Parts: sequence; C-alpha cells; structure tokens
Amino acid sequence: MRPTPIKKEIVDTLVESLGIKDFAKATIREVKQVAAKAEKESGVEYIKMEMGIPGLPAAQVGVDAQIKALQDGIAHSYPDIQGYPELKKQASRFVKAFINVDIAPEGCVPVCGSMQGTFASFLTCSQATKGKDTILFIDPGFPVQKMQLQVQGVKYETFDVYDFRGDKLGAKLESYLSTGKICAIVYSNPNNPAWICMTEEELAIIGDLANKYDVIILEDMAYLCMDFRKDMSVPFQPPFQSTVARYTDNYVILLSGSKIFSYAGERIGLSCISNKLYHREYPEMKEKWGIGKFGDNFILNYLYVNTSGAGHSAQYALSAMLDAAVEGRYNFVKELREYALRAHRSRQIFEDNGFHLVYDRDIEQTISDGFFYTVEYKDLSNKTLLESLLRCGIIAIPLNTTGSHQNGIRVCVSRLRSEEDFEKLDAHLKMFTGLVREEE
Amino acid sequence: MRPTPIKKEIVDTLVESLGIKDFAKATIREVKQVAAKAEKESGVEYIKMEMGIPGLPAAQVGVDAQIKALQDGIAHSYPDIQGYPELKKQASRFVKAFINVDIAPEGCVPVCGSMQGTFASFLTCSQATKGKDTILFIDPGFPVQKMQLQVQGVKYETFDVYDFRGDKLGAKLESYLSTGKICAIVYSNPNNPAWICMTEEELAIIGDLANKYDVIILEDMAYLCMDFRKDMSVPFQPPFQSTVARYTDNYVILLSGSKIFSYAGERIGLSCISNKLYHREYPEMKEKWGIGKFGDNFILNYLYVNTSGAGHSAQYALSAMLDAAVEGRYNFVKELREYALRAHRSRQIFEDNGFHLVYDRDIEQTISDGFFYTVEYKDLSNKTLLESLLRCGIIAIPLNTTGSHQNGIRVCVSRLRSEEDFEKLDAHLKMFTGLVREEE
Repeated sequence: MRPTPIKKEIVDTLVESLGIKDFAKATIREVKQVAAKAEKESGVEYIKMEMGIPGLPAAQVGVDAQIKALQDGIAHSYPDIQGYPELKKQASRFVKAFINVDIAPEGCVPVCGSMQGTFASFLTCSQATKGKDTILFIDPGFPVQKMQLQVQGVKYETFDVYDFRGDKLGAKLESYLSTGKICAIVYSNPNNPAWICMTEEELAIIGDLANKYDVIILEDMAYLCMDFRKDMSVPFQPPFQSTVARYTDNYVILLSGSKIFSYAGERIGLSCISNKLYHREYPEMKEKWGIGKFGDNFILNYLYVNTSGAGHSAQYALSAMLDAAVEGRYNFVKELREYALRAHRSRQIFEDNGFHLVYDRDIEQTISDGFFYTVEYKDLSNKTLLESLLRCGIIAIPLNTTGSHQNGIRVCVSRLRSEEDFEKLDAHLKMFTGLVREEE
Repeated sequence: MRPTPIKKEIVDTLVESLGIKDFAKATIREVKQVAAKAEKESGVEYIKMEMGIPGLPAAQVGVDAQIKALQDGIAHSYPDIQGYPELKKQASRFVKAFINVDIAPEGCVPVCGSMQGTFASFLTCSQATKGKDTILFIDPGFPVQKMQLQVQGVKYETFDVYDFRGDKLGAKLESYLSTGKICAIVYSNPNNPAWICMTEEELAIIGDLANKYDVIILEDMAYLCMDFRKDMSVPFQPPFQSTVARYTDNYVILLSGSKIFSYAGERIGLSCISNKLYHREYPEMKEKWGIGKFGDNFILNYLYVNTSGAGHSAQYALSAMLDAAVEGRYNFVKELREYALRAHRSRQIFEDNGFHLVYDRDIEQTISDGFFYTVEYKDLSNKTLLESLLRCGIIAIPLNTTGSHQNGIRVCVSRLRSEEDFEKLDAHLKMFTGLVREEE
C-alpha cells in the first residue's frame, strides 16, 4: 500500500497538545516531539533531517586513546583546569596545520563541546568592558546560541546576511558597531544552517572592523575544512581553512570534536584564543576578579566555575585525533567528504521535485556540498512547508528559527546513509508535491 | 640536614609578585601558585592539604563500563539531553537505597560534575520567580559556588552556621527568608570544609521553612554516606544518609561521582530533582521559554545550552557504579573509610602539636572523621597561620574564604597516603610550632 499524507488535523492536534503556539517558530526539540508522535500514529518511518548529529563512526584513533587513558587510571584525577598539556600542544599544531594560524598552546583551551566554548565566550566577552554588553550575530546561525544569551541575560543583535554579502557587509556591520555597545560578533564558517562561506573579501571587512571598533570575533568552526570546493586535507599545505584571523588579532576560534571527528558523544571541543587577545588586560576584569588577562579570566573564572574543565579521558582522545590529523595518519577531511556526497545526491532529489536552494551562492560561487543546506518550495510559507513535509514523513527545521528572514527549511544530510534512504526521500517528496498540488 | 622554615621575605615576595593583595583571602588557586613557587625555591616537598582531590583509584566497575561503551561506539552519538535512560533508572534506585528517598528516574539528571549541577540550579532557581532572586548560603561552604553566582550576576546572602546550630537555626534562617527575596538555600552535608553534619532537628527546621517560604533547598551531597559515625554501607537498610528531603518536597539533591567513586576526572554527577519540584509549574518560566515545569526547564534550557549534556561514556560509567553499589557488589562506603582513617591519624598529629578543631561538634556529638576538617592554632590570625604553615611546607586554605568567620584552616586528608606522609606532617608541624614560638 502506498503511504498517504497524514491528515492535517492530526498534526494540528499534536502541535496544540504540546502547547506550541506557532509551529513555524518551533524549536528543534519541539519539531522532534511532534514528529515522534506523528511517526507513532502514522506508522510511517520518518526521514530525519532536523538534527546535526554525526552520521559517521567516531574516529577510532580517538576511541583507542581514550580507552588507554582510562586503563591508565585517568578517571580519578581532576583535569588540569588549563587543559591537558599535550592536548594544548596538539591543538596549537592542528590550528597551524589546517588554518595556518599561530596560536600558542596556552590559548588552546579544552571545553565540554563547542557549546560550552560559546557559553563561556559570551560570558567573558560581555563582562570584559562596561557598556560593551551586546553580542552581534551574523545570521543565519545556530539557534541555541541565542538561548545561551537569554539564559545569561546578555543582549544581542542580529541580521540576516542574505542581503548583505560582499561589499554590502561593511556598512551593515558598522551600523551596529558604531553604537559602541557590541562586544563580540559571532558567525559560523562554513555556516550552519546555510553552508555559505565568508569570502576573503568579507573576512577582511569583518577583521578590519573588529580592529576599528575593538570587538572580539567568535568564529565558530564546527565544520572546519568542510568547504569541499577546495581540498584542505593536506596538513601544512594550502589551501587552508579561511579565517578572520588573517585580518585581526581579536578573535577566538571555536573548534568542535563533534563533527570533524564524529566525537559528539564525549562533549569535547576547543576554544582557541589568539595570542594577543589572551594577554590583553581588561581593567574591569582585574577589578572584579583580581585577574586582568582575557585568557586567564576565560579559563580560571568562566570555565572553571562552570564544569571544572572538560572530561579527562576525552581530552586524551581529542589530543590523539589532532595529532593523527596533523601527522597525516588520519585524513579527517577525506572521511567527511561522505557528507558532501550525501548532500549532492539529496539536493538533486529536492531540485528534481521542484525545490530550490535558498542560500545558494558565495557571491559568485555556488555553495559547497556539505553537512547542511537550505531549500524552499515555490512561495510556501515556513509554516505550510514544515507542516506539509511533516504530514509526508519528513522532519527539518524552519529557517526563521535560525535568524534567517527567508522562507525555507534547513536540511541536514548526516543521516541519509543508504540508497534506500534516498529512494525514500524521493518518494516522500513526491507525496509532498502531490499534497501541495491538491491543496492549491 | 634538618629543613628549616622558609624566610618570611620569600613568601612575601612571592605573594606580591602574583598580585595577591591579601594572602588570607587568597583563592585555592592562588595559594597553590604561591606554594608551587615556594616549593621550587626551598627544595622542600610540600604537604598538600589544600585541594579536595580524590586520593583513591577510580572505581574499576566504572572504568570497565566506560571502556565497554567506547568500544561499542558510543563516542559518536550525542547523549540524550534528558540523560542516558539506564543511568537515570540506576540513579533513582541509588537514591532510594542510600538516602531512602523516592525520586523518579526523570528527575535524576546527569551533569558535567556537581559543579555544573549547582551552576544550572542557581540559574534555574534565580530565574523561576520574579523578585525571588537571591541565593542563601548556610556557610561555611565551597568558595567556588559564590564565584558561580558572581559570573551569573546573581545575588547571594550568607551566614556562618557556627553560632546558629540547633534551635538557633530557625530564627536566623527566617531573618533572611522573611524578606521574600530568597529563591534557594544551599549547603553541603557532610559539610565542606567543616565536616559538620546537619542534625535531624536542623534538617526539619530547614525543611519546614522551605515549605513556609516556598524556597528550594539545594542539598550538596558530594560526600554522601561519609558521616562515618554511622555505618550507611548497606543498601536499602537503615541508617540512611540524612536529608532535608524527609521534611520538604522543595529540593534538589546534588550528587557527584568525584568523591564517592573517585571519578573526578570524567566530570560526572547528578542533579536529583524531587518529583513535586520537577512538575511544579512556574508561570514566568512558561512565559519566557514556553515550558513551565521546573524539571523540564532545568534540562531543556539551562543544562542544554550549557554543554548539551554530560559525556556519553562517563554516563555509562556512573550507571554501572550506581548499579554495583545498589546491588552490593561495590561497597563504596567501605572504600571511603580510608579517608576516615587518614583524618583520624592526622587530626591526632595536629592536636599533639597544639592545634584544635574549629568546627568540632554537631550539637552534642563530636564530628565524624572524613575528607576534611578544620583546625586553628592558639589565637593566630588566618594570615599568620597560613603564611607560617606555608613557610614550613604545609599548604591548606584559610577558613575565611569559605564564608566562615572563624580563624583557622581547612585540612583535606585525601593525599596523606603513607606512614611517611604522617611522619612528614608531624615534622613540618613541629617546625611550625618552633617558628611560632620564636616569633612570639
């Protein structure tokens, strides 16, 4: 029997029963809850494209090192709050090898996932200088970062970069920076959800303005080296991951083990603070904590009081993975190319069914295939699009929850594993186009 | 050659060079820095009693389970934000077996160490009800918890329980609670640093007032079952760990794997929210987050945005350790008795050298031997005591940094491992008494 769409009433009832006011503004968690119930009621297995979870096994070199550390008795001793020294050393080498940037080991700080990296960075940046208390997002972005600021009671501004690419970016940024209130700017590169990448011209603009207005750039590199238009897989050889670090010293690069090493379970990442920023003295910090340096404050106050450091054995895992990558023993970029293949194939299926990329270009170049992309369908609103897809067994998140002003959804390809998955996606999308035609 | 005290000038110079204004108010970290330099300059190996780090190997059952989870491929997948279901189930059983309290698995929430447990609890409690924005400490306590509130910008009040034990506690608490501003009360039981334990009478007072003034009790049980005056080692059999949970439903019990299983390295603990508090609806939370329940907010907002959960493999470790304890296969209380032996022996050495316990009794009973205790020497001020001990090769932390108004130091016995250590302690204390006599 060919499956048919779930009745609209069922979805409406589920949405209502969960107390969701506007389904188009639903969080990932809420979308998941609705989908889980709909899946149960319909008996149809859903295609899950909503969460950015790794779809590859964890890097074995990390698993082996973590097991060895545990066997050697590491579990009983608190991690050094500065971080496991060997990990810090390897992180510094890794940043040089793949980003071509020099950051001393002291500035490479292990965190409980990049989630904690931004959490602590937001706190440190927003408390560093009186009056500079607002974070600026170059959106679209990861919705949870805004929740972090809500929890912290820190203000933020945001704009959708869609209409401000290239030489339009500078004036737009200055309209916020000239208020003097912005302490930090955050964006991801490659971008979650849109997979756009800042061009060198754009990074230069951001870096110059960071210098001019003395703001800190929080550059989220969760998807490091995953702009597959270039082959960045050879350590210490160009091309390198592009970065604002070539244009300013006011930066923190946020690295995560979750995606590049498929190590999401162990909550391990790195906040890499530029040498200059690490040693920058902030008089108000000195007054409050007796410590003036940005880096020392980040580690000894903001991270320390949060979790007393990152899991000890996971630090050994990350250290081994970084070392293997730098030495060319583990080609993480090659492993991750699998996502590009999945993206390429699934994008084709979306396009064959009448969908179009929303964020489609970096100025002149088409975006890379990667972990995420964004699609729209005709002029369907987010709510109708999301609901109709859900009725046809597809889960994704609506773009407006990411700070985007465009209609569309974010597609995560990580869980599209087999030929069968792609065939199912095609079948579900055909069901969707049929449904939309019927209801037009 | 018999070692002699380090010159006062050397300590003074070190203190000054580190930018410490008042050595008696130095943090653990600062005391450690001074001691590390003094150790280097003097060539004398110090007796380190300043940090509460486990002095026993990690529970092997946990290590084995964590290794197995890693071998099974857990590292690649994000932990369930609610927590690993089996761990939640085991935590609920453990709480019943050793505290004799019923908390449903849903309320037993894994955290990245109890440090994160208090961090997230402080945020949740202080944002739950408008106007109720202040945390009350029954001190002495763990200094870092106050740093957490400074980072969060949350207010706190504190009093030293020394003069308010027994029936004096109620009026003292009410003097704070009657302002209507207190959202939560925090204390540790057994107490860090003083190793005092609240009596049943005192817990009843706290519980009754929690009900009367609708405040949440954050009961820090990092040292669960370590009141060795009672044998609490038999699961499901009295005597049980005493708790405020017998007198109120407004509580969160904070458990840590760090001390009871010597698992500090992996940053794993539990926040155990009472069934009633978990399901309590907070209208302002509902307005802000679209979620009303305390427990859901704690997990889905405050913990989620912080680290997206606790390390996945460490959750398997903790689950196995709790299970082994509940099933009587691993007697953690018996293992921890080693600390009581070290405390007993070292206390005797302190007393033989003219020291006295500061916090010495729970009303009528002498305090238990355990992980910490507090001592004073004649009428020596904190500064002189700390400095003189440091000059004689002993590191500890001054009581005033713990919210205590008494003179004295906190002694942690975890690193006193061998007969040689005790002999060294005695020799260093004799050096100290000689030094004090000389300078009188």
